[in-house]
Amino acid sequence: MALEHLLTVDDLDRETIERIVARAGSFAEVSGRDIKKVPALRGRTVATLFYENSTRTSSSFELAAKRLSADVIPIKAGGSSVAKGESLEDTVRTLSAYGPEVIVLRAPWAGAGDMITRWTDAAVVNAGDGKREHPSQSLLDIYTLRRHFDSLEGKKIWIVGDILHSRVARSNARAFRTMGAHVTLCGPPTLLPPQMGEALGCEVTHDITGVDDADVIYTLRIQNERMNESFMPSLAEYVIGYQINSKRLGAKQLLMHPGPVNRGVELSADVVGAPNSLIEQQVESGLVVRMAILYELLAGGKRQMGETA
Amino acid sequence: MALEHLLTVDDLDRETIERIVARAGSFAEVSGRDIKKVPALRGRTVATLFYENSTRTSSSFELAAKRLSADVIPIKAGGSSVAKGESLEDTVRTLSAYGPEVIVLRAPWAGAGDMITRWTDAAVVNAGDGKREHPSQSLLDIYTLRRHFDSLEGKKIWIVGDILHSRVARSNARAFRTMGAHVTLCGPPTLLPPQMGEALGCEVTHDITGVDDADVIYTLRIQNERMNESFMPSLAEYVIGYQINSKRLGAKQLLMHPGPVNRGVELSADVVGAPNSLIEQQVESGLVVRMAILYELLAGGKRQMGETA
Amino acid sequence: MALEHLLTVDDLDRETIERIVARAGSFAEVSGRDIKKVPALRGRTVATLFYENSTRTSSSFELAAKRLSADVIPIKAGGSSVAKGESLEDTVRTLSAYGPEVIVLRAPWAGAGDMITRWTDAAVVNAGDGKREHPSQSLLDIYTLRRHFDSLEGKKIWIVGDILHSRVARSNARAFRTMGAHVTLCGPPTLLPPQMGEALGCEVTHDITGVDDADVIYTLRIQNERMNESFMPSLAEYVIGYQINSKRLGAKQLLMHPGPVNRGVELSADVVGAPNSLIEQQVESGLVVRMAILYELLAGGKRQMGETA
Repeated sequence: MALEHLLTVDDLDRETIERIVARAGSFAEVSGRDIKKVPALRGRTVATLFYENSTRTSSSFELAAKRLSADVIPIKAGGSSVAKGESLEDTVRTLSAYGPEVIVLRAPWAGAGDMITRWTDAAVVNAGDGKREHPSQSLLDIYTLRRHFDSLEGKKIWIVGDILHSRVARSNARAFRTMGAHVTLCGPPTLLPPQMGEALGCEVTHDITGVDDADVIYTLRIQNERMNESFMPSLAEYVIGYQINSKRLGAKQLLMHPGPVNRGVELSADVVGAPNSLIEQQVESGLVVRMAILYELLAGGKRQMGETA
Repeated sequence: MALEHLLTVDDLDRETIERIVARAGSFAEVSGRDIKKVPALRGRTVATLFYENSTRTSSSFELAAKRLSADVIPIKAGGSSVAKGESLEDTVRTLSAYGPEVIVLRAPWAGAGDMITRWTDAAVVNAGDGKREHPSQSLLDIYTLRRHFDSLEGKKIWIVGDILHSRVARSNARAFRTMGAHVTLCGPPTLLPPQMGEALGCEVTHDITGVDDADVIYTLRIQNERMNESFMPSLAEYVIGYQINSKRLGAKQLLMHPGPVNRGVELSADVVGAPNSLIEQQVESGLVVRMAILYELLAGGKRQMGETA
Repeated sequence: MALEHLLTVDDLDRETIERIVARAGSFAEVSGRDIKKVPALRGRTVATLFYENSTRTSSSFELAAKRLSADVIPIKAGGSSVAKGESLEDTVRTLSAYGPEVIVLRAPWAGAGDMITRWTDAAVVNAGDGKREHPSQSLLDIYTLRRHFDSLEGKKIWIVGDILHSRVARSNARAFRTMGAHVTLCGPPTLLPPQMGEALGCEVTHDITGVDDADVIYTLRIQNERMNESFMPSLAEYVIGYQINSKRLGAKQLLMHPGPVNRGVELSADVVGAPNSLIEQQVESGLVVRMAILYELLAGGKRQMGETA
């Protein structure tokens, strides 16, 4: 299945994921060289349109495009016409008039990526749309895990924390299942309504004790701003009930987190840099996986390239 | 007339406009290729200095420079020393010390572009100075029209809306006349004082009915922030009196707007994407025309180039 | 001494400074060419991480990197995850995961540059850390002076103004001494405590009259925001006591200022552009000296390069 857009993990079957993971591996070799560039996208244009703050996602997409020798048009909501109330449609049509091959969109509105495909000929990458999806995160997490496991088939992955507000949880639960993993969602009842398990095809538990059995513990950021919204009785209770710390993390279990970490909340400070923490590897993977995503979109059906990496 | 700066449409005679339009046409061919870059400005530096928000103007100048292989120094008022009260003079002198060949300036002060030529050896492009001028917009509008008309000689162009506050109206009225068009300004009396017609050498009317006769209807943005300033009795009255909608727009009339559009105000939503709307083509033209402007400035008298596109 | 990081002027012995000054001189020749780029850092990545506003420092480091053909990841505090409270450590670890060869850091915290070397393999350049140090400024000031003097040995340099709050004063006083100059600090007692002279190995005076004897007068910015903090009785008194104007500046004395200048405060408007003012040359020097710094760090021990400029 050649990928036309990357809007949701539903766009990704196992074969497509394998192809992107393999391609990312070959780009990782390039990243080890002195001259880290490949000419694959020379003369192509990648526009990044970010309506929300982001360091790691925007900078890794921008650098991924530059490493592939593309030109980048970075647009942030602050300091652009967005501030004068220009509609998403007008902004996308404007950008599209410059003929970018890819638009990478981060927006607070669920489905924003799907919506803009109507207004542009560019391939669209959803780099996070509200609480809904973040498929490039799923790909980089699978790539990261594949450096440790030959396959995710039958692996037990627990996703722990604020499932309700997490686009990463929504995307990863399904992407991990596509790769054959068994996924358990764990969090306090207010942050993990029972119907989410059904919707995502995962087991649900509010009891952390079973986490001993997991091969991988995938923790989520607790957003301080949620505290005022009475989703949690108190931060202290969350820490007691769900924080992953050196008592809960087994030596053979792999620890992941999409960043940025709230040290002392969802993770204790000592486990962040533990030998079995993959958190830094996840960030590293972001660059090469995003190179592979851009390559995949441009090498796919509608947008073939003459040159290869 | 070799162009040294692009500060006002008074810098543009018909021959210069024709040369830039033709050059933009040749860059449009490059934009259709897989590899959209030309080496014309390799090793040259274009600084963009924006004291006002802008998506389309800043990004099209930046991308135009990159497509010509130049390096870009993008400076926005937020996040720079401008925020600590550095004067325009100091900022321009600082930038100039890095030896950019071109400075593209957007500022809220009329005449800012002219003023900074005293402080820099760079060619200066006025990318909008308050309510005064926006000459690159005029060039891209003429280029857009020339894709539909062999000549603008004798064409009837109506500019409709908030003429008083519009730098686009001021620049376009004169530039269209330079190309031989007959220009009519139309808007409510509070937004179109009679002396503007004299100053710009155009006919003035407050009555929209005559617009049937126009070959081109050029609409302007109604800025919501003006509403508080009692220039208009109400938005509803403006819509009744001057909105261009499917009743007012004839099938053979061309529709233009500099963007961003306030749908439902100066234009009804249905005409924005009509077959005779040139609004998207205007944005597309922005890129190649700005490439041609940068090229023209560097190929001109003082700043000759060894390489050509 | 091969430079591993540039964190403080203590990292710079006279030999290293001479090497960087000479290298900057060779880059100045490149800047005079039509095509101002050298391939020295092609495929390398320079990240600039700015937690404080800056036009001249950030843009000169970015352009320096581009002129050396490096890719740049520019991160500003506004519009990034920094705004969601991501810690400096997490941001640096994230950036580092992309494998930049150099991180240029501007931060309001003294010692921030030293601190981040623990979290990254990149060479770190301190581009200003609170009131503590600004070593690239010292290098560009020495380079600028060396275009006028064969040596700084025995030259009398006065640093005048708000010494207490100035990282430039702290760095330059010591760097000028390393090059053999005799440095005098001059300012009102509230802005120049006696122990600073001891700490920096300089003479201290609160009396401006002796400035006649200086070869170089290096003035500092008076920050308006300090006025509320009662460090100064009034701006008028400062001007009377310490402003450098045409009465105080001798025709053979060289005038310097790190910018941006408060005209009418620490300098009168007429001396800023005087023939013996080096202020514009300082800014010009910024670009080539920062090219030389990036080159030095990458040509040094741990980070050897295959290619040369």
